[in-house]
Amino acid sequence: MIVIGERINTSRKPIHEALEKRDKAFLQEEARKQEAAGAAYIDVNCGSRLNTEYDDFLWLVELVQEAVSVPLSLDSPSAKVLEAGLANVDKRPLINSITLEKERFDEVAPILEGNRADIIALCMDDSGIPNATEKIVENAAALVERLEGLGLERSGIFVDPLIQPLSVDTENGNTALKAIERIMTDLAGVHTTCGLSNVSYGLPERFLVNRTFIVCAMASGLDSAIIDPLDKKMMTNILTAEMILGRDEYCSEFIDAMREGRLTP
Amino acid sequence: MIVIGERINTSRKPIHEALEKRDKAFLQEEARKQEAAGAAYIDVNCGSRLNTEYDDFLWLVELVQEAVSVPLSLDSPSAKVLEAGLANVDKRPLINSITLEKERFDEVAPILEGNRADIIALCMDDSGIPNATEKIVENAAALVERLEGLGLERSGIFVDPLIQPLSVDTENGNTALKAIERIMTDLAGVHTTCGLSNVSYGLPERFLVNRTFIVCAMASGLDSAIIDPLDKKMMTNILTAEMILGRDEYCSEFIDAMREGRLTP
Repeated sequence: MIVIGERINTSRKPIHEALEKRDKAFLQEEARKQEAAGAAYIDVNCGSRLNTEYDDFLWLVELVQEAVSVPLSLDSPSAKVLEAGLANVDKRPLINSITLEKERFDEVAPILEGNRADIIALCMDDSGIPNATEKIVENAAALVERLEGLGLERSGIFVDPLIQPLSVDTENGNTALKAIERIMTDLAGVHTTCGLSNVSYGLPERFLVNRTFIVCAMASGLDSAIIDPLDKKMMTNILTAEMILGRDEYCSEFIDAMREGRLTP
Repeated sequence: MIVIGERINTSRKPIHEALEKRDKAFLQEEARKQEAAGAAYIDVNCGSRLNTEYDDFLWLVELVQEAVSVPLSLDSPSAKVLEAGLANVDKRPLINSITLEKERFDEVAPILEGNRADIIALCMDDSGIPNATEKIVENAAALVERLEGLGLERSGIFVDPLIQPLSVDTENGNTALKAIERIMTDLAGVHTTCGLSNVSYGLPERFLVNRTFIVCAMASGLDSAIIDPLDKKMMTNILTAEMILGRDEYCSEFIDAMREGRLTP
């Protein structure tokens, strides 16, 4: 499972405050803890800092990559910010994200030329976020085709089906799960990823719903997620599902994690 | 999810002791608690009582059906015991179980004639328990064909793919999951069910593995399981997965169960 650690996001109050105070030590510790917990990428997002995002982002990128040995996930609504981030990283990052929306695609595409970054591709276009499997898969195929046209390889493309809330329509789970299965089959070679805040919107016990959804999604083929790797219950479900799904040779990762107290049965 | 409550089994010490003492009140309470927790069938098994199984079984059948309004799952290695159980139940029971093994099939088949009971069909034959998806599905198809030949309907057949331990081969999970998906598609109309003790054999934190496996299995189509319905963490995973998989209209069962404290987030 390719975990994209989501904690360094200024929409979270402790991160916002640490950025305000230029508390480099705290932010670097946030990055280090996520790496230790198994993050393959550290996401950096300060999109909530409307007026200062550009400078804040570059400051964050520098301190995070100083702290960890894993690459960054450069996460911004601004193509200009993403481009500056890309120019300042040592390791091939993940760009978060591109869509089929004409404006967003045209803005982000030039950054991807030369195949210097992996990319999260959100399955939405100018008609909005699809709520049918067929349309999600269609958007995924179009995105992959266009990204391949820019010189990217499938192994560098993380397709996000954009899960919609179960509380809005109880079929939304199945819609996303079937889309994941189809994308992993029809577009073999790509990754699928997702954030989890939407699926449980409007329900009680959202963390339970999120960490159960991810097991279902992994059974459907999901091989990446944008999560908080310090959420032990979430990581417990992920590592247990990895073993069940045959992705943990000799069950050794599960057994080691359990022995080391990294999981919470 | 069709839950088959597994608690009344004399291989469990409290049940063995209650049977020894003819503690009817305790055993009836075991049955009632399982029904209240959501069991659709109460399994009755005293196969460990080698010399007295026949009489013990009939005594248990009578007291259990006096206590609950759901039907029984008549569970015995002996066809004679199953037949006597069937003659003594008020409601259409589940027979646990038949296999493709020649001797077992020939013994149990006559009991099923006249379509008076549902049946758990274990996907094994005289060559043993299969460890390849293809062979499991082949056995399932043969069982369903022969059971239909006896007059049973698919809706009364619970196919059990017989999950093998992950600790023996990390592909055993995928093998069973793919078999469940194939059976639910190729043999549309049947149920799939499973016990969970095997999957986690030899691993630490077996309950965690079992209750995570069931979520994966449900995502693959599993619609029944032989479990302890008083295991709140297991039932939490089942009800949450039911909602995620679109089997809980308006999410109302999940929300109610949470509100009533039946789940443990």
